[in-house]
Formats: sequence, structure tokens, C-alpha cells
Amino acid sequence: MNMQDIILKKRYGKALSDEDIDFFVKGVVDKSIPDYQISALLMAIVLNGMDDREMTELTIKMAESGRQNDLSYIDGIPVDKHSTGGVGDKCTPLVMPLVATFGVSTVKLSGRGLGFTGGTVDKFESVEGFNVEVPMSEFPDLIKKCNMAISGQTPDLAPADKVLYALRDVTGTIDSIPLIASSIMSKKIAGGAHGIVLDVTCGHGAFMKNLEEAVKLSEAMIRIGKLAGREVVAVITDMNQPLGRNVGNVIEMQEVFEILSGKHISDVENVVCALAANMIMLAGKNEGMSIDELIDECKVRLTDGRALEKYKELILSQGGHINSNGSPIYVDYPNECMRISASQDGYISAIKADMIGKASVALGAGRKVKTDEIDYGAGIGFYVKAGDYVKRGDALCALYLGSKHTEDEDRLFEAAEIISDAYEYSDIKPDIAPSVIEVLK
Amino acid sequence: MNMQDIILKKRYGKALSDEDIDFFVKGVVDKSIPDYQISALLMAIVLNGMDDREMTELTIKMAESGRQNDLSYIDGIPVDKHSTGGVGDKCTPLVMPLVATFGVSTVKLSGRGLGFTGGTVDKFESVEGFNVEVPMSEFPDLIKKCNMAISGQTPDLAPADKVLYALRDVTGTIDSIPLIASSIMSKKIAGGAHGIVLDVTCGHGAFMKNLEEAVKLSEAMIRIGKLAGREVVAVITDMNQPLGRNVGNVIEMQEVFEILSGKHISDVENVVCALAANMIMLAGKNEGMSIDELIDECKVRLTDGRALEKYKELILSQGGHINSNGSPIYVDYPNECMRISASQDGYISAIKADMIGKASVALGAGRKVKTDEIDYGAGIGFYVKAGDYVKRGDALCALYLGSKHTEDEDRLFEAAEIISDAYEYSDIKPDIAPSVIEVLK
Repeated sequence: MNMQDIILKKRYGKALSDEDIDFFVKGVVDKSIPDYQISALLMAIVLNGMDDREMTELTIKMAESGRQNDLSYIDGIPVDKHSTGGVGDKCTPLVMPLVATFGVSTVKLSGRGLGFTGGTVDKFESVEGFNVEVPMSEFPDLIKKCNMAISGQTPDLAPADKVLYALRDVTGTIDSIPLIASSIMSKKIAGGAHGIVLDVTCGHGAFMKNLEEAVKLSEAMIRIGKLAGREVVAVITDMNQPLGRNVGNVIEMQEVFEILSGKHISDVENVVCALAANMIMLAGKNEGMSIDELIDECKVRLTDGRALEKYKELILSQGGHINSNGSPIYVDYPNECMRISASQDGYISAIKADMIGKASVALGAGRKVKTDEIDYGAGIGFYVKAGDYVKRGDALCALYLGSKHTEDEDRLFEAAEIISDAYEYSDIKPDIAPSVIEVLK
Repeated sequence: MNMQDIILKKRYGKALSDEDIDFFVKGVVDKSIPDYQISALLMAIVLNGMDDREMTELTIKMAESGRQNDLSYIDGIPVDKHSTGGVGDKCTPLVMPLVATFGVSTVKLSGRGLGFTGGTVDKFESVEGFNVEVPMSEFPDLIKKCNMAISGQTPDLAPADKVLYALRDVTGTIDSIPLIASSIMSKKIAGGAHGIVLDVTCGHGAFMKNLEEAVKLSEAMIRIGKLAGREVVAVITDMNQPLGRNVGNVIEMQEVFEILSGKHISDVENVVCALAANMIMLAGKNEGMSIDELIDECKVRLTDGRALEKYKELILSQGGHINSNGSPIYVDYPNECMRISASQDGYISAIKADMIGKASVALGAGRKVKTDEIDYGAGIGFYVKAGDYVKRGDALCALYLGSKHTEDEDRLFEAAEIISDAYEYSDIKPDIAPSVIEVLK
């Protein structure tokens, strides 16, 4: 067997055998296959596709290429959630305590933000003292204490995927259903979950720009799950505008605390409860409730203080500080430095989430390159959302900077310029997609 | 401009701009573009194609990536021929002296054999004393002396093509009309010819396995020629069996001498005269004759001694030795070591040229890897050709080895085994393709 024959097979549109895929993934990890052959095969896969068996085999071999977590210390069926990436996505810090109120334990291995999407690990790190560098050996204790554990330490999970992802990033081969699906699913499977709820974002601010593509990706991951013996539910959510009212790190964690303390922010609530209810169902902890009943019950517990109690347990369990009124203490605080106003009268028909994400990075809330330092206090707060009517001059959003950067006008101007292109107006009331578009399983 | 955007453009099936192609070729030569990005783009070109403007731009930029020959020392329009590769292809040593009888001068920059196709340079080197390492500075003198010059020194011609070819060879991206066409045409254009006659081989033993593919490649090269200001004629020739009666080095040069001395071998004669007549026409040396009249005149001069006189001039001009009866002296002589017999009664319907080429390499007449030493005396001689009727046990061909290897049974057995799969039989008289299938311009 040699790599050239494998490339030729895919180049001529044939399916790779299990042995071909095994040879390929092994060669990627042990570096016996040169990058130029890997990238040629990736482009052939992008253009000629993969069938379900190939995608599943690639997923499983990538999952087996590194550490595979054993979550048997969890009571019941271990479940996990994963988002394909969004702007203003603060679901994880809401979903974890919410499902914990049903006795569902979650181990989250999360990434840092890169490019225009934020990272859950960065958001938790904006809480003073919160430790995300938790070794896996401590997970069972954390789970026993509060049903929740979160860590940013995932270097040895699916190393083959890491190599492929770095190469895809520079060879125009990111945008491919089989490659995206196997990348996500390999990490989830190696992570040890048996029930997987996927938040598949869809719109300007997402990988998948339209519903058709989001459905295709969802169905591919569900099929991989079936063949790999995992239960998968895909919740397709709208990303034609940022999720919720805030984008940033501290500012999003403040929003999380407000919701848990009783504030209703409908798009966040809908997405979080759809994800949580499906996780609870997959974990078998639904206590006889139907999915719709579960969603209603989630909505109650999310804001009535029960999820808040679990949230505080999580913060304290990993070293985070909480002040006397019960709110987390943050490493920095957002300072409002500029307001952006509407340039015309009309309905807001879209707030392009990718542009908002880029503006947020420009403010310092994210990283352009891996080594950038984050301004935890930076971010954007929204006064209006898509579908709202505004008059010229009305405030659309506010730009925030951390305490060290309040004088940094360059950041503000760069962000303001990007944001001016993010808003679209309409004379007639536009149709706005629901925050949860479709649930597939 | 960056390489990733260029890859993405082609990945989404869009045409590359002239600037994109310029950036790409420059980056290939100065090594600023890493191999893994080059191979990703090559695979995207293979699968999504290139239009005529793109192919032409790629051709011209590759031609401009290194030395560009100025053939203005040649009287009239400089012409060249190129074969896309065949087995038993001894056309160059016949065409050069033949067109010289019409006053057409030719400068040939030829390659060595690699894989199952032989190399013209190796064949000339089988003549004792013949020097193929001629620096270009000596070409004008050689042309003045005898209208002909041949050299194997082409390291600085189209260096971009050399890099791409080496990468294509190991990334499954050889088989692509735009990449093959631009590779061939870039070298011909950098070589300085204005009129180009292409011998596009077609069949088992060729790149192009069927007529449809051969026509596509021919048309692509003709269109590139038109856009690049070169006149191109494509002669599509049959490669479903080896050309002529011998395959090897000395043994093919012996066949060349026999033909020039009056022996009629119809397939070689037809191909050589079609190529030569078109070259003479493009060079404007047809002296009022039509193409058909020229072909007839070529057939006369090929065997009546006139081409032989020019051939001797060529051999002597580059240091080759000739014995008293006028034949070249060779570095070694073929020794018949084995005969292969027909395994059944019937018509020979095919002699798969690729298998014959591989058998010839097994005997030592070619190279498996670049550093292999050639056995100049090794080769295969054919007693029958496709279309002939044989009875079981009749001799099909003889295997020859050079004087140092006559005891090397391993080579004989390996070659014999390959050859046994090369012959196909038929109960009814098969249709055999003409040696010249079609001429396109």
C-alpha cells in the first residue's frame, strides 16, 4: 500500500478502503506521509467527497490516534455538547449547570477562541481564580463534587485531526462536509461521550452559510454517530446575528449570570434549553418527560435559581471567586467607550455575526494569532436585535474595552468601521429566522 | 495576493487570473510557496480544470521561469517536434536527417528514458563517441555544419515545470490535460521553436489511453500555441503496439540505420514522414509541395540514401564513430538470449506497449530509477506485429542482452513473464489502428 495509490483512488472518485484510511491516519501521525501528499488527498476529498463508511472510518481512526477518555466514573450515559462555532455563544456555561439540575454530569474539553469565534475556555478564564488547566486525573473528583468539570487541556486528543486541521487551514480545504464532520466527531468520540448533542450554527457567522449546508453537515454527523455506535442529535441554530445581547468574555459571563438570575433573553434561552433537553434525554435522565416537556422544565430551571446554584458550585469547584451578592468576580470589567448609531431609519434585517466577531477581535476580545493576549474586558453590547425598528441616530450597540485599554482609540475606530458594514436595513419588517431552526436525529 | 486565496478560487471552480498564475509560478521557482499548497492547487486544477487563457498563461509563465533559447541563428522559421512518449519510438534520429534534406535545421533538446518509455538521448549515446553533453554555445556551429544539433543538457529550461512535475509524480496529479499540455508546451516554447509538431501517442503504451483523450490533449496544445503565437500541428499516432520492429537502445539505432539504408518498416515510415512533412511545411521549406506530396517525397528520401547521408553527418558532427561500411559503431551489441513463442493459434490483436516497455526495462534497456545504469545492448526484437496470424509455438519476439549480461537469467525470466501478458489473441482478423490516426492543426 502506498499513499500515491490512495490519492489516485480518491482523485478518480473511488471510495477509500478501511485499510487505506488506517494507513493514511497512521502516516499523518507518525509523519511518514509528507504534507504535500496529505494536502493533495485532502483536496481530492473536498472535491470528490466521501461516503458514510469512509467518513466513519476516518472519524474512528482519528479518534484512536491519541488518548481516548474513559468516562465510566460518570453515573449513567456520558453526554457532551459541541458547537460548530458562533459569535456570542455562551451556551456551555448555561447548559452545564442546567443539565446538572437533572443529575446529568458533564465533562467539557473546550478550546480557546481563534479567528472570529470566541472560546469557552477564555470566557471561564475571565472569572478571577478559575482554573481551566485541570489534569484529567482530577475530573472524577470534580464530577463527584458538582457533576461538572471543564478543561482546556486537550493536546493529546485526536492528534491526527490536529495535523490535518492545521494543513486544511492553509490549503483551502476547510470547507468540506466529510472533513468537518469527521474532525468534530473524532474529538467527541475520543472525549468519551456516548450521547452527543451538536449545536450546528447556520448563517453569516457560521461555517455553514445556509440551512441546506447545515442540514447536510448535521446528517453526516448523525450517520457517523450511528455507524460508530453513538447517539447524536443535531440542533440547527441561527447565526445570522450574534446570540444574545453581549459578545466578548467578561461581558458574556455577566450575561450568563443575569440569565441564571432571572433575566429572559429569548434566543439564548431557546438554544440553551433545546441543547440541554436533548442532552438530558440522551443521558436517560428525563424522568418520564417528553422532549417538549423537558424543554419547558429547562426554561423554568434556567432562570428560577436552580441552575444558578449549580453554576456557583462549578465556579467554586474550579477555584473561581464569588462576591458577597453571589456573582463571580471577574479579572477585569468592561468600560463603555463608544456607541454606534443607526445610519438610517428602518428595520434591522441582519447583524452579520462574522463582522461582529471580527470587530470583537479588533477590540481585543479575541485573538488574530495564537499568541495574542486577550483583553477580557473588551466586547460589544447590543441595544437592538435583527427585526427591531430603529430611527437614524438610535444606538445600535456599545463598544467596551478593558481597564488597561480605555484610551486605545485605534481599537475602537477599527471595530467601528467593521461594525458599520455589519448592519443591514430594510423598509419592511423582515422575516427573522427562529433561534432554533430544526432538530435532527 | 496569497496562495490560499488562489487555491480557494480553483477549489470553487473559478478561473485564475493572469496575476494569480504569475504569483504561483514565481512562488514555485523561488520556493516561497510550500509544497503542500502547490499540491493542493494541482489537485484542484486536476479536478476543476483550466480554461484556454489559464492554460496559456501557465505555459508562458513556466516557459519564462528559466532560460529561453533564441534560435535566430537558424535560417528560416525554427521548428521542433515532441513526442508525448512511446515504446520503440525512434522517430527523432530519422526525422532530423530527413527534414535536413529539405534544408530544415533542427535543435533537439531531449530527455533520458525513465519508466517504461525510452529516451532519445540514451539511443544516441549507444553510438560510440557520440557526445550529447553539448553546451548551447556550440549549437550555431553544429547547425552551420549539418543543420542538426542534439543535446541532453536542459536543466535550466522551464524550471517551474520541473518542480511541478516532480510533485505531480508523487501526488496523483499527472493525468490532467491542462497540466500535461502546459508542461509540454512550456518546454517547447522556452526551447525557441516557432513551429511545433507534436507526436501525440495514443493507446496502452501512452499517457492518453484512447483517441478521445488524445484529441482533447492535442486540441488543448493547439489552442495554447495559437494564443502564444506558435504554430502547432498534432499528429495522433497509435501506441497500442510498439513502433517498428525493435525496442531498446543499440537495437533501435540499428533499425534506424536499416531504414535509412532502404528497408521499409511501414509504421515507422508513416509516422516519421507525417511528422517530417508537417515540420517542413511549418518551416516554409515545402518548395510548393502540398502536404500529401511532401509526405510522398519524404518516403522517397527516407530510404533512398539522402537522409542517410545527413544522418552520417550528424553522427560525425557530434563525435560519433562510423565504420568502413558507413554504419555507426555502437558501445555494445545485442545478443539474442531467449525467444518467446506464441501460447496459442490466432491473430495477434494487441501487443501492449506499456508491458513491452516494462519488459525492456527489466532487461536493462531502461531505468527504474534515475541512477540505474543502462545496458545498451538489451532490448526486444519482434518477428510479428499486431494483425499477424501465428500458430502455437511460433516465435513472437526475441530478448537481447548486452555482452556483460548474457548470463543474467533473472533479467530474462522477469522480462519473459511480463511479455507473456503483453500479447492478446483473437480468432478473427482484428482491426488494427493505422500508425497515423489523425492530424490536427
